[in-house]
Amino acid sequence: MDLHGGNIYKIKDGDKMLDYSANINPLKVPRSLKESITNNIDKLINYPDPNYTDLKEAIAKFTKVDIDNILVGNGAVELIFIFIKSIKPKKTLILGPTFAEYERALKLVGSEIDYLPYGIGDESYFTPVDKVKEEIIKDYDLLIICNPNNPTGHLTDLEDIKEINKIAIENNCKLLIDEAFIDFLPTGEEVSAKNLQSKNICVVRAFTKFYAIPGLRLGFGFTWDIELKKVMDAIKEPWSINTFASLGGPVMLADREYQQRTYRWLEEEKEYIYRELGKVEGIKLYKPQVNFILVKLLTGIKSHELREKLLEKGIIIRDCQNFRLLDHYHIRLAIKDRESNARMVEELTKIINSN
Amino acid sequence: MDLHGGNIYKIKDGDKMLDYSANINPLKVPRSLKESITNNIDKLINYPDPNYTDLKEAIAKFTKVDIDNILVGNGAVELIFIFIKSIKPKKTLILGPTFAEYERALKLVGSEIDYLPYGIGDESYFTPVDKVKEEIIKDYDLLIICNPNNPTGHLTDLEDIKEINKIAIENNCKLLIDEAFIDFLPTGEEVSAKNLQSKNICVVRAFTKFYAIPGLRLGFGFTWDIELKKVMDAIKEPWSINTFASLGGPVMLADREYQQRTYRWLEEEKEYIYRELGKVEGIKLYKPQVNFILVKLLTGIKSHELREKLLEKGIIIRDCQNFRLLDHYHIRLAIKDRESNARMVEELTKIINSN
Repeated sequence: MDLHGGNIYKIKDGDKMLDYSANINPLKVPRSLKESITNNIDKLINYPDPNYTDLKEAIAKFTKVDIDNILVGNGAVELIFIFIKSIKPKKTLILGPTFAEYERALKLVGSEIDYLPYGIGDESYFTPVDKVKEEIIKDYDLLIICNPNNPTGHLTDLEDIKEINKIAIENNCKLLIDEAFIDFLPTGEEVSAKNLQSKNICVVRAFTKFYAIPGLRLGFGFTWDIELKKVMDAIKEPWSINTFASLGGPVMLADREYQQRTYRWLEEEKEYIYRELGKVEGIKLYKPQVNFILVKLLTGIKSHELREKLLEKGIIIRDCQNFRLLDHYHIRLAIKDRESNARMVEELTKIINSN
Repeated sequence: MDLHGGNIYKIKDGDKMLDYSANINPLKVPRSLKESITNNIDKLINYPDPNYTDLKEAIAKFTKVDIDNILVGNGAVELIFIFIKSIKPKKTLILGPTFAEYERALKLVGSEIDYLPYGIGDESYFTPVDKVKEEIIKDYDLLIICNPNNPTGHLTDLEDIKEINKIAIENNCKLLIDEAFIDFLPTGEEVSAKNLQSKNICVVRAFTKFYAIPGLRLGFGFTWDIELKKVMDAIKEPWSINTFASLGGPVMLADREYQQRTYRWLEEEKEYIYRELGKVEGIKLYKPQVNFILVKLLTGIKSHELREKLLEKGIIIRDCQNFRLLDHYHIRLAIKDRESNARMVEELTKIINSN
């Protein structure tokens, strides 16, 4: 299984390298969470609360969504799988290029899958609202939008989601909106599809990237379809969230200082990387909304060649050739701390210039 | 959801009570695991190895099963669900009374379910081998045996499993053997069904009870059916095991001192509880093989009444009336440390005698 940009286990000394392939907050594991873990080790002796009531209450408070509409999972990915298994779509439309796990979950339920490409503008990808509306009047049961989208880094506006959802409802097409990166936007809670409170939309959210804890396994989701929620609850395996995640979730959501530091870091570094990489000739940048940037290679160097050359310099990047609708001229870079970013920009610039 | 004896979250001050309803090792979370957790908090920043290679290697070494036959999961329960979803039985035979989660997993795939009762002897329940053989020549796709069985506490001999499996193979009936408690037997590795290395048998094992870590979520399983394993790997959700469990598994398996202390404790306390409760008139004991004991109430007091009375004394027990094939005259008691056991025996004796 090689699911992910961030599989450092297949690379020699992978944990000593600069990992630009996984989009993880460089502020690292919050101190508040570390304390929570250290203080709660003895609680491993109990099963987690099977209803995860305290965790859900904290999410309800943070997101202002009613607790009855909240689901929690072993990472966002468990909720994506449960949602897809619950609605069992016969035919699904995915806006792409995007995260690959949707396809794996859809294949498990035997769904047909079509991709509709995002539009490509001068500065960034964009969501072709009219085309989406044209498509979903066909016989789709499900439309999946990753928002902000991985790996293109662009945001679909809430108004556009609303408009698409209107047509979707008329055509019995459900929406799955994966907002695994939306918390990196200071306006994340405002632009989230949760604000539509639509019975037709299921929203998936993550702790993973923002709080730098891929190893802890914690995600959550929203649905306003009470019948669907019953089905999801029924197929969910018990205790899939461990004690540290269950107790740590509320602690992280309450850590405003970590959240504010993250917004400040990302505002600066997004700007820095976009400006500095913008000076490199022979690459095209797609303006990032969150903590990663999609880059198109224009000099003829292929993504896997660039990846190999940067690996020699101790830097891992995401070769995007296995994303559907992308080719071997695309790479994705995480946005990290200034020192790392400067080094990555320098090494990448040298390779592109010598190419 | 009220899945379990050990749901302390529904009881006021549940964490301050003596919990005899969850069968957890009273030696508590191993110190070796605590150290591993404390030392590895920063590793949460990486995704766990999606192949969990180091964890599987440690399990292979401990159990002497080839790594290619090993699966790991978010508790034994994830593997039970994945196994049942993979073979999708139309009709399943369960030896009971037993653990309730099999039924929930079977219902998700629409399996018909029949129960075959264990035999009841003077001292303990037993597995009626001939009856099982008679039954599985009918059109069952799957036979489930929990071994040692929860809540009866008896062990099905490996020779009996072997004999049953022979008939099962002839009749295209797979076996799922849940060995979540087998590690409490010092001879656990010898009597495990893994030793049959049968393509027809899937074995599920747990870290949960023995290492006192229901909150960590870690289990493993064996299959010698390579085609089935491919299906199981395909439907398994990625990264379901968190970093602490993934790194802690090998540490626990290497902790011989904890294992030896557990064997010594249980040998003494099993004996003690059986002897002391044996002095109480008005109850029948079923001799325990592992760390819990099934008790039948003969004075007319009902299991929920006894549970209420013991709750008032700060002791939680498992009322077994919702186990299929048991009634409201059965309770299950964990075996804990001497001080707790003495107090539990004293309070229970008082209530039974005054009844």
